[in-house]
Amino acid sequence: MTIALPALNDLGARARDLPGLTRIETHPRDVATPIIVDMLRSVYPHDQVFGDFCPVQGYVDAPPRDLYNWLSNTRSLEEWTYSLRGFRETDEPGLWIAQDRLGDSTDIYTRTIVNPHAMTVDYHCAWDQGRHLWMIYLMRVVDAQVVLDKPGSVVLWNNCRHPFYDENPYPDTAPPERPVWVGDFWEMFSAGHRLELANLTAIAEYRHANGLPLTPDWMRS
Amino acid sequence: MTIALPALNDLGARARDLPGLTRIETHPRDVATPIIVDMLRSVYPHDQVFGDFCPVQGYVDAPPRDLYNWLSNTRSLEEWTYSLRGFRETDEPGLWIAQDRLGDSTDIYTRTIVNPHAMTVDYHCAWDQGRHLWMIYLMRVVDAQVVLDKPGSVVLWNNCRHPFYDENPYPDTAPPERPVWVGDFWEMFSAGHRLELANLTAIAEYRHANGLPLTPDWMRS
Repeated sequence: MTIALPALNDLGARARDLPGLTRIETHPRDVATPIIVDMLRSVYPHDQVFGDFCPVQGYVDAPPRDLYNWLSNTRSLEEWTYSLRGFRETDEPGLWIAQDRLGDSTDIYTRTIVNPHAMTVDYHCAWDQGRHLWMIYLMRVVDAQVVLDKPGSVVLWNNCRHPFYDENPYPDTAPPERPVWVGDFWEMFSAGHRLELANLTAIAEYRHANGLPLTPDWMRS
Repeated sequence: MTIALPALNDLGARARDLPGLTRIETHPRDVATPIIVDMLRSVYPHDQVFGDFCPVQGYVDAPPRDLYNWLSNTRSLEEWTYSLRGFRETDEPGLWIAQDRLGDSTDIYTRTIVNPHAMTVDYHCAWDQGRHLWMIYLMRVVDAQVVLDKPGSVVLWNNCRHPFYDENPYPDTAPPERPVWVGDFWEMFSAGHRLELANLTAIAEYRHANGLPLTPDWMRS
């Protein structure tokens, strides 16, 4: 027996005709199914999948808590990213500076904000300056036992296309005549991040399979 | 100046030839760029994008904390999902039962696990029985000011293809001769979830634009 709840009562008559609203009461299965099927494609254009957001995710055969602890350490980026190297903490606690070797003489600043309960790991970064960290790498480690019925981890990763990718808001902080801007790479982020997720996976799985701590000793000190 | 850190020292020689590892030291830009470009496509097959995971995400013009609070309430599913209706709490605190009107006479159980700091909202669900909640809807609300430089929210949502989607592990709990199983819809999840994210967006934006509380009064009691 279904209990009638006052869902959307506050919308009044709009509950039945609000644009973008498709619920079984107004769109029974025989109406909604063709709408849904019509949204499916055999292939999707790159921009539809990776235009405004850049979701990548995958399974990692390593324990989720250990994986989370490694990723929580800003210096893990020294290991699994393609080009971030030479991390050292600035005078401001928790704010790190490194080189992004994708750029020429390019500093990158990072502050890592984590939540050990939700196992979210957010890298707040920016090229050139550390006052406004607008390049946000949103990651999360999930227990694969819960979501895939097997030991290990799932890593979810997403980036949002911040408008600064299109134009450097702090050109005065850039090295003179640098030929590239980080946003020039947005179109390649999906592939670049899949490559870096493969790095992360290869390193974590090797360490786990060989009985090495996921977070190496030097990173703990 | 880049400081040399002992990244991957514990891997020994494997740091240079571990399968799946692509770092600037072993793959300088002129080597890595064609690898990355070769991973890009003008179009991607459905199964590559939505085969094992089902990422959907979008911008919502409503305040993130209010949106999080609404979604944290299990009964919000009564409003923005296509077919979950009639929520009532079971004798077990925090475990809710409802009808999934996609199925015939199908009960769905839900326990919502949230984290107010990370603003994660995970709906742990299952058809037919509430002892093993294996259908996990992983959602997260993000402050759009931080990631998109404008007021509002970004909603990230992902599902993992749990093996039970392929075969009902508890057939004895299903109503007799039910013609469908929830996993029959996996191939349509990407479209179905985009449709439901559109519902969520339409409702939240309407309430926000019209000065209505995002969480309606009846849901608070």
